Amino acid sequence: MKNALYAQSGGVTSVINASAYGVIKAALNSKDIDNIYVAINGINGVFNEQLADMKKEDPEQIELLKFTPSSAFGSCRRKLKTEEDFIKIFEVFEKYNIHYFFYNGGNDSMDTVNKIHKYAQKIGYDLKAIGVPKTVDNDLPETDHTPGFGSIAKYLSVAILEGTLDVKSMAADSTKVFILETMGRHAGWVAASTALAKRHESDGPHIILMPEVPFNKEKFFEKIKDTISKYGYCSIAASEGIKYKDGSFVSARGYQDNFGNVQLGGIGSTLANMIKTELNIKTHYAVPDYLQRSGRHISSQVDVNEAINVGAMAVKYALEGKSGFMVGIERLMNSPYLSTTKLIPLDNVANETKLIPEEYITEDGMFVNEKFIEYALPLIEGEYYPPYLNGIPVYARLKLETINKK
Amino acid sequence: MKNALYAQSGGVTSVINASAYGVIKAALNSKDIDNIYVAINGINGVFNEQLADMKKEDPEQIELLKFTPSSAFGSCRRKLKTEEDFIKIFEVFEKYNIHYFFYNGGNDSMDTVNKIHKYAQKIGYDLKAIGVPKTVDNDLPETDHTPGFGSIAKYLSVAILEGTLDVKSMAADSTKVFILETMGRHAGWVAASTALAKRHESDGPHIILMPEVPFNKEKFFEKIKDTISKYGYCSIAASEGIKYKDGSFVSARGYQDNFGNVQLGGIGSTLANMIKTELNIKTHYAVPDYLQRSGRHISSQVDVNEAINVGAMAVKYALEGKSGFMVGIERLMNSPYLSTTKLIPLDNVANETKLIPEEYITEDGMFVNEKFIEYALPLIEGEYYPPYLNGIPVYARLKLETINKK
Repeated sequence: MKNALYAQSGGVTSVINASAYGVIKAALNSKDIDNIYVAINGINGVFNEQLADMKKEDPEQIELLKFTPSSAFGSCRRKLKTEEDFIKIFEVFEKYNIHYFFYNGGNDSMDTVNKIHKYAQKIGYDLKAIGVPKTVDNDLPETDHTPGFGSIAKYLSVAILEGTLDVKSMAADSTKVFILETMGRHAGWVAASTALAKRHESDGPHIILMPEVPFNKEKFFEKIKDTISKYGYCSIAASEGIKYKDGSFVSARGYQDNFGNVQLGGIGSTLANMIKTELNIKTHYAVPDYLQRSGRHISSQVDVNEAINVGAMAVKYALEGKSGFMVGIERLMNSPYLSTTKLIPLDNVANETKLIPEEYITEDGMFVNEKFIEYALPLIEGEYYPPYLNGIPVYARLKLETINKK
Repeated sequence: MKNALYAQSGGVTSVINASAYGVIKAALNSKDIDNIYVAINGINGVFNEQLADMKKEDPEQIELLKFTPSSAFGSCRRKLKTEEDFIKIFEVFEKYNIHYFFYNGGNDSMDTVNKIHKYAQKIGYDLKAIGVPKTVDNDLPETDHTPGFGSIAKYLSVAILEGTLDVKSMAADSTKVFILETMGRHAGWVAASTALAKRHESDGPHIILMPEVPFNKEKFFEKIKDTISKYGYCSIAASEGIKYKDGSFVSARGYQDNFGNVQLGGIGSTLANMIKTELNIKTHYAVPDYLQRSGRHISSQVDVNEAINVGAMAVKYALEGKSGFMVGIERLMNSPYLSTTKLIPLDNVANETKLIPEEYITEDGMFVNEKFIEYALPLIEGEYYPPYLNGIPVYARLKLETINKK
């Protein structure tokens, strides 16, 4: 008897449950896997022996996972530290006959799978451990991109398109600057993706601030003034993680006025305070926060499909005997867009961060060029709307009854 | 020769251009109206004689107005004050043979139409002036509701649904409270509409803060703690305009910590600082700002249809000789939902604000009851998606070449 275990970890995306769907369906359909369990709240569900049996769920609800954002099984931020952690994990694996382990997450989570894979080898436990990638940050190395990125890119491109139309309407006698604060603490992929909304020179965004480029207030102000003199308004996407040249976060310092009063807040509020105070221009800012990474109502079809595929392929690779790998995405062609999956050794992935290459960023450091657009545009293609009832989406409601502890 | 003039005013909505579509199409199709002009940037376009001829626009782009959020013709916040203002307006009206005037806006804008209507009567100028309602705030009196409200309600219901799934995922070992900051400076309709996302007792939102009910920190904290102990997390919708008992805005006072440091910000950031500091609970907040009122990608079909209807009916009423009225919406039945239009004297509308009636609010003052749901639910029904190209919506691009000044 060989069972499989799946769990989700780290910050969520709007398509992580599509990967869950891929794993669960492939496992349920495999004659080599007896049961597929899901650990509740990531690896914590293993420590607490909180495992839910996917055969007990209503198949209709399993189908709805394709459309359901966020983590349907609960997530966690736990890092494995001590030998005791591993002893406990393998005690549980043995008790429940877990011989396939699929962990769905970002950089830290891939480190977790890798350590579990290595521990299994060390103690001679038969385990196939595969990492299923997920992160809106798109910062995992060796994979062309990461499931979750295409959908946040689509959400934010639509957001900046609509937000820019708003500030454009108001600019003649009121607000002239609109700032969209995006996720991205270390890498600027998410902020940069808003460039996909720009079809004409005058369209927003006009400025994109990425953590890869040190923030320069004078150049930033110059570009705002230039843009307003040309178009009457200015639309900006700012990554939460932008830094000064000395490496300190712009938002961490907040905005300090001439009287020494510091106003702390996110990057949107910090920049808006700067612009209002020093340029005397009325400014609005939006902070989508969770909405951008859980906005399944506007997910990319390409992204959902790939998220399902990496999940299903993780099972296929494991059944072929592979372990210690992450399922990566390889781009085959751009037009029409086509991709396939590949295996990436977890050693090459764990704890690495992929930044935007310099060759994608414009000379002034405040926008991205055609190479970035060529890279990112296929990833937001297609609308894959969830079903609706009474005006709002119908998302999965799983029972998640945990099996009796042995 | 009798021409018509249309303009947009005040804060925008995702369906104001659907009303423009109704006005423009009805005017173009009428044999009694020679030309339909649009004033650029609201009434300012009259003062500056910046008028665009709708016959010069590509009909395909006119069709796209149904799908285009924000103000396609520019908006303004100008209030008419002096006799000179009116003299100038009627000088322009006479020069361009304007005898039909349609002004699309909220409370202040209805005051403007009313004054123009009255001035025409006073000087004996043949003018049919009709107000076309628009405001996300839903605070215009005598109309059942206002175009724009259904769509912001749908946007925010989807937002709180998706944001709540996110905090639910993270709550086990990280963030436990999610706050959605909504528009609504005086009335709480917008914040209250998030209740439409709640299908089960455990669903978010768990708390709704409206300006109609004085903010009570102790009761608020009590309900947060109760909710977390029941469900593990708590999801909150907070109107930007909530006030203390003394009438001061909660956000205007900001959050003052024990050292006397005041952190100013929006209501989301203010409440999050309170909760983090005093309850020691990790809290996230989202500020959709412009995105909520320009989020056409997720507009309500009922709302779009009604927005078109009030625009087209404004023309019909004017051609019947009516002037000094706003087109209101009358609800005929709830299931299936059916509405029609009616005329409301502008005297009854201008500068009045309709608050949420007490009988819609729960006893604890922090939620709405079944009566509110019955009222609001039909207004978010139906999805009316814009067309997409390369992953983002295709919105109207008008030429807006202004006619030669006479």
